[in-house]
Amino acid sequence: MHGSMFLRFVFIISAMVLQIASSNVIVEKIEEKVENECNLSEDLINEIRGYKNVVLKITDHILNGKFKGEVHKSLQTFTDKFGSRMAGSDSLEKSIDYMEALLKNEGLENVHTEEAKVPHWIRGFEAASLVLPRKAKIEILGLGTSVGTPRGGIIGEVVAVRTFDELRKLPDSEVKGKIVVFAPTWQGYGATASYRGSGATEASKKGAIAALIRSATPFSIGSPHTGSQTYAQGVRKIPAACITVEDAEMILRMYNEGETVQIRLEMDDYNLEPVTSRNTVSELQGTKSPNKSVVILSGHLDSWDVGVGAMDDGGGAFISWKAVKFLKEMGLRPKRTIRSVLWTGEEYGYYGAKEYQRTHKENEAEEFNFFIESDTGTFDPVGLDFTGNKEAECIFREVLNLMAPLNATQFETPADGGPDISVWLNRGFPGASLLNKNDKYFWFHHTEGDRMLVEDPDSLDRCVALFASTAYIIADLSVDIPKEIKN
Amino acid sequence: MHGSMFLRFVFIISAMVLQIASSNVIVEKIEEKVENECNLSEDLINEIRGYKNVVLKITDHILNGKFKGEVHKSLQTFTDKFGSRMAGSDSLEKSIDYMEALLKNEGLENVHTEEAKVPHWIRGFEAASLVLPRKAKIEILGLGTSVGTPRGGIIGEVVAVRTFDELRKLPDSEVKGKIVVFAPTWQGYGATASYRGSGATEASKKGAIAALIRSATPFSIGSPHTGSQTYAQGVRKIPAACITVEDAEMILRMYNEGETVQIRLEMDDYNLEPVTSRNTVSELQGTKSPNKSVVILSGHLDSWDVGVGAMDDGGGAFISWKAVKFLKEMGLRPKRTIRSVLWTGEEYGYYGAKEYQRTHKENEAEEFNFFIESDTGTFDPVGLDFTGNKEAECIFREVLNLMAPLNATQFETPADGGPDISVWLNRGFPGASLLNKNDKYFWFHHTEGDRMLVEDPDSLDRCVALFASTAYIIADLSVDIPKEIKN
Repeated sequence: MHGSMFLRFVFIISAMVLQIASSNVIVEKIEEKVENECNLSEDLINEIRGYKNVVLKITDHILNGKFKGEVHKSLQTFTDKFGSRMAGSDSLEKSIDYMEALLKNEGLENVHTEEAKVPHWIRGFEAASLVLPRKAKIEILGLGTSVGTPRGGIIGEVVAVRTFDELRKLPDSEVKGKIVVFAPTWQGYGATASYRGSGATEASKKGAIAALIRSATPFSIGSPHTGSQTYAQGVRKIPAACITVEDAEMILRMYNEGETVQIRLEMDDYNLEPVTSRNTVSELQGTKSPNKSVVILSGHLDSWDVGVGAMDDGGGAFISWKAVKFLKEMGLRPKRTIRSVLWTGEEYGYYGAKEYQRTHKENEAEEFNFFIESDTGTFDPVGLDFTGNKEAECIFREVLNLMAPLNATQFETPADGGPDISVWLNRGFPGASLLNKNDKYFWFHHTEGDRMLVEDPDSLDRCVALFASTAYIIADLSVDIPKEIKN
Repeated sequence: MHGSMFLRFVFIISAMVLQIASSNVIVEKIEEKVENECNLSEDLINEIRGYKNVVLKITDHILNGKFKGEVHKSLQTFTDKFGSRMAGSDSLEKSIDYMEALLKNEGLENVHTEEAKVPHWIRGFEAASLVLPRKAKIEILGLGTSVGTPRGGIIGEVVAVRTFDELRKLPDSEVKGKIVVFAPTWQGYGATASYRGSGATEASKKGAIAALIRSATPFSIGSPHTGSQTYAQGVRKIPAACITVEDAEMILRMYNEGETVQIRLEMDDYNLEPVTSRNTVSELQGTKSPNKSVVILSGHLDSWDVGVGAMDDGGGAFISWKAVKFLKEMGLRPKRTIRSVLWTGEEYGYYGAKEYQRTHKENEAEEFNFFIESDTGTFDPVGLDFTGNKEAECIFREVLNLMAPLNATQFETPADGGPDISVWLNRGFPGASLLNKNDKYFWFHHTEGDRMLVEDPDSLDRCVALFASTAYIIADLSVDIPKEIKN
């Protein structure tokens, strides 16, 4: 054996041994964990593992068969046709009409809509500019439910802060009559978006005349991000808009340098009376009792008025109903009903889901088995996050382990990416939401960049295969998923 | 020896052997190459290698001493103060006044400005929207030198193509009176930006009334990118603007689906007579003959009117003059003069550099030794690209090898990132431009996102250390860098 050949041989063997050793460690760890925590009967475990071939069949059909690319194509046709779909808009209602017809046409069952009131806010002309210390355009997007400025706009001196705490510590006299600029450091969506949600309220409490808030994103190409905000009861309603990360940082810097900063702001935005919108429902009815122990697959159809809501939440909505369609076409009808719900009015605060919960409340314990949602992007799926009690978790973990052919077995708890289904999950119903490689999600979120270019056909195929497989198994099991309803 | 220990041992040994083997191969390759190509005298090689400690000193001072962070801080103060600096604007001229005073104040020598005429184009109100097949806002940025639309705007049916070739193949009757949308696939900046440069001309030749062109970027968050364009002589001047990647793709899709696509376009843009601007010059004068064999360090001070030109090319301009300042403060005065030139009017086509070339033409062979430029971002530096003859290259490679303490020894040829100095490099002068980790450069290029957030203080420090070290050595060597001037 030649010297270099020997070395190559040694290297290959070492690499193989290392690989085998490390995969054994992983398997051991998983088994140890499951053994420690779960007491599922061997029968149930075997029953769940028996769905392995069903997952393989669904996955193969969707990834390699005639459904390949269908979700992307269909979502593209939809978003090209309707563009953005803000609650209260004609565009949303027309898109719901279209979906209802499409779902019937595609062979889904019990297709209908259920009404829900949603806010009706109008974005009028919006413009802002720096007046002092120099003139410059400021890109803004008014926040949903914000009042406008008086006609012709306002000019105000700026007070800039990083945190609510900094603002609260200022004497009212330093804030009164001024425009508050919030430049919070990015600390994840929840923490940063709290400034969007309450910035106007907190500024108004100190006597400010408007609030401009850093967009809730870790990355920016001069892009403002819109979103919803709420006025606390009793405060004077002042105009609220998001500005770019770049401008927030610059204005804070100027203010901290002791410059007099002045901004001109014009927003012809206003609120109208709530209007009636609709959740869009379709089903694959179960072989046993169609209206009992239903498994919900869901996403929301409404969007903001910038971009086309391809990512938030066109992708989530489309994998939900396409999963139902694909199962039906494959002849996979489970014992329980799988119901796709395309929520309306999510962006202003789950209006569609809350109304659906109210109208279905009477028999909800009997009607619903498990809730699934996708609303944090449909990039490559990696698993599902989960909310439920220990026993439910044990069953769910067994189901999730079957998603290995999709590389989507990652488990997290509690479920974090299901705003609409939180209406039930917070009350003890079990459910899950999509985990996906969405590290760039907030780059595009609520911007002009929420477009079809964000969506990848193959990723959508894997997402829909994961949704179809998971929903089918849970809907077909011999047992319901345990719940503990609080009211 | 335990089994797993033996395997670990085998693995470690194999890895070590592989590493040693591969590094030997690299060393052999480098030595072979240098031997094959270069015939520098041993004295010159030793002389160049003798600057090793100077590089260490410069690098240590800038990265760890009192200059640390100064470039970023100073650039931030500058961009906050002036914002964008478009040729023809008051802002540019005021920023040049400021720079002239600042350079004097910072102790640079022979500080002065030299006049150059630059275009004067005005961006007025700009707006576009999709009219058919549905209503939607279209984000646009008019292109520098574009004419406007008639007051009140125009509405035109759309012809959408991917390539010039597709457009040329269409009968004139299908293009006449329409708006051409170009949606070229991203194939690098040069290829894609050629649509920006000539889109209006090619569309006009076919009788179009306006041209809308995909922004020259591989990545977008709904962000339009501006830039320059040129009308070929004799064609009717029609309005030209960039649209986002997202809209270009969507409009092309709609058009290819057979939809009637209509766009409303309003651009109150217009051209005025050229105005006088200035290149800003400062020096560290050489100990021998101050106006002979000068080494130029340069970047451009003008920018587009969106963003603040922090990246394009504030960073490049600031590392150029700060390198000169730092060398002086460190007491490192070379034999030849190092001259920083902050070009004006680069964005419309090197107006400042071309005028400087003309006015210095008479003695240029004697006056100029080597040209350095930074105009492709000041992210982390990795080396310098180079243009020059074989002997010049051999000297330059030896110099570049000394930049190992900065991890910036990467060599490429010809120089590709020096638009202003191409005025000389294309004519046989030797020169180099900054290579840096600028894979996201075109994401921000000519957009509202060209802001201070793109610039990193440590990266700027490393860039300026590289510029200072390289310029110092080349200005101090016993020999000039060979040139072969063509006229």
